[in-house]
Amino acid sequence: MTAAHFGDRLAQAVARRESQIVLGLDPDPAKLWPQAAADTGASPSTAGPALAGPAVARHCAALIDAAGPACVAIKPQLACFERLGSAGWLALEETVAHARDNDLLVLLDGKRGDVPVTGRAYGQALAGATPTPWGDVDGLRADAYTVNPLLGRDALEPFIDAGRAAGAGPFVLVRTSNPGAADLMDLELAQGGHLWERVAALVAELGRLGESGLSDIGAVTGATVPEHLARMRELMPSTPFLLPGVGAQGGDVAQLGPAFAPGRAGGLVTASRSIANAHETAGGAPADAARAEAERLRELAWRLG
Amino acid sequence: MTAAHFGDRLAQAVARRESQIVLGLDPDPAKLWPQAAADTGASPSTAGPALAGPAVARHCAALIDAAGPACVAIKPQLACFERLGSAGWLALEETVAHARDNDLLVLLDGKRGDVPVTGRAYGQALAGATPTPWGDVDGLRADAYTVNPLLGRDALEPFIDAGRAAGAGPFVLVRTSNPGAADLMDLELAQGGHLWERVAALVAELGRLGESGLSDIGAVTGATVPEHLARMRELMPSTPFLLPGVGAQGGDVAQLGPAFAPGRAGGLVTASRSIANAHETAGGAPADAARAEAERLRELAWRLG
Repeated sequence: MTAAHFGDRLAQAVARRESQIVLGLDPDPAKLWPQAAADTGASPSTAGPALAGPAVARHCAALIDAAGPACVAIKPQLACFERLGSAGWLALEETVAHARDNDLLVLLDGKRGDVPVTGRAYGQALAGATPTPWGDVDGLRADAYTVNPLLGRDALEPFIDAGRAAGAGPFVLVRTSNPGAADLMDLELAQGGHLWERVAALVAELGRLGESGLSDIGAVTGATVPEHLARMRELMPSTPFLLPGVGAQGGDVAQLGPAFAPGRAGGLVTASRSIANAHETAGGAPADAARAEAERLRELAWRLG
Repeated sequence: MTAAHFGDRLAQAVARRESQIVLGLDPDPAKLWPQAAADTGASPSTAGPALAGPAVARHCAALIDAAGPACVAIKPQLACFERLGSAGWLALEETVAHARDNDLLVLLDGKRGDVPVTGRAYGQALAGATPTPWGDVDGLRADAYTVNPLLGRDALEPFIDAGRAAGAGPFVLVRTSNPGAADLMDLELAQGGHLWERVAALVAELGRLGESGLSDIGAVTGATVPEHLARMRELMPSTPFLLPGVGAQGGDVAQLGPAFAPGRAGGLVTASRSIANAHETAGGAPADAARAEAERLRELAWRLG
C-alpha cells in the first residue's frame, strides 16, 4: 500500500478545516492556564515535581479544545516536553493523541538533523515505528516535523523517506526568524546567492509534487523577514511554507501574500504565545481569549490565501 | 557559587580516567546483547513492545559495565531512545544515572538547535532544571551535549549559558563525518573560506579558556576527513574536539594527531558500534569483546595524545 502524498494530505486538511493556522504548543510549567495547573485530581498518587508533566498535558489539551477548532494542526515544541524528562515525553504522547482525536494534524517541532543512520532512528521516532523482538514500537506518528539541513542531502534523505512511507512530510529550515539566523543562513556564497537560497534550491529539488500541486517537502520560512518571501516562493514554487514568528515574535500575517501562491495550504501560519497568552492583553478567561485570537488569525489568513 | 569550568572538568576527567575514549550508545532494540534482551525478569508485569525500553536500559548498562572502565564518557544518541517514546526516555535517564555512578561523563548527542527561547528550554532539558509550581524538575544534568549552529550566534548562546551555569559544555557541529556534510558545510563563502571555517571561528570566539588551557565550548569535527584536522586546530587552538566516525564509520584513530595539540583532553575519540559489536568480528562474549576493543582504542589514543 502506498501512503498518501503529504502535500495532498495537507491541502485536504486545510480545505476541510478552512484554516491555515498552526497552534504552537510551547508549554512553560510556570505559566500554565490556572485550571490546568490546579486540577491535580487525575494523579492523586503523585506529588511534587511529578505533577508537572500531567499538568502540561492538561494545559495542552485545554488549549487544543479552545483554539483547535480554528486551526489545521498543532505544533508541539519538543524542547518544552523534553525538559520534563520521561514524564514530559508522556505528556507529549498524550497531547499528540488528543490533537488527533480532534482532527488536527500534528507537526512536531524538534528541528532534528543527524548523520544518515541516526536520521533513520529519528524517522522512526517521529513518523514511523521501531522493530523490536517484542513487536513494533510506535513512534509519535506525526504528520510532519521540522528538520535541520546543515548535515546535507544524505542526512535529509531518511527524514524524507520516513515521511513518504507514512504520508508525512519534513519541513526543512530554510530561514528562521531569530536575529542570529543572519549569521550563517544569510552568508553569501562564492558561487552566488546566500546559504539559505542554496538550501531552498535543495528543498525544491528533493520534493515531489502531488495532485494538489504541492510538494511533499515543506520549508520553515521566517515571517519576520517578509522581503525574503517572494524570493523564497520563486525558488520553491510548490513548497508548503511554515511561517513562524507570527504574533509574539513580531511577524505580521498581512505580509505573507507570496506564501499562498500555490494555494491556501502553501502557507501555514504558526502562532503560539499570541494564542495561549491572549487573555493577558484581551482579558477574560484564557480559553475564551485563545479561541477568539485563533479565530481572528484564521479569518485574516483565509482572506489572504 | 560559580560552577567549574567545563574545559577544566574535561581535562581532569581525562587525566583521572587515563582515557579519551567516548563510548557511543546507539542502542538498536533488534540488536541488543543477548543477555539484555533475554532478561525480562525485572519487568514481570509488562509484555510486548513495553519490554523494549527496559531491555535497552539493560543493554546500555551492560555496555557501560564492560567498556566503561576504558572510557572517559558515554555519548547516548538521543534518537535511539526517543524512538521508544516515554519508555525510551526513561531508559535514557537510567543510562545517564548508571554512567554517573561509574564516574563517567555524560555527553548527550542530540544535535539540538533552535531559536533562543527554545534553546533555553533545551538547556534546561540537557544541563539544567525547569522551575515549576511544584518544584524544580531536573533535566538530564549532562556534562556536555552536541549543538547545531545553523541558527546562529543568538541561538547558540542559551546552550552556552546553560553549560556555564552547570560546569557543562556544548559541542558545536563544525564538520560532521557523513558524505553529505560537504553539501553545505564545505560551501565556499564570498568572504573567503568555507562555511565550516566560519563556524569554527565562531566556536573559538565564543569559548572561554580555563586553567587547563582548554575552551569551555567544544567542536564536533569529523574524523573521516583528517586533512581538515590541522586547519580546524589552527582555527580553534584551545577547543576540545569530539571526533566521531572512528571505527564503524571508517575513521582511523592514528590520523588524529592535531586534535591533541592542546593536551590529551583536546581530542575525544568516539566509538559506538565498533565497541558494541566487537564480538561479531573478534568472537567471544559481547562484553569481553567490547572491553578489549575499548581498551585497545584507549591505549592507541593515549599514546598519540
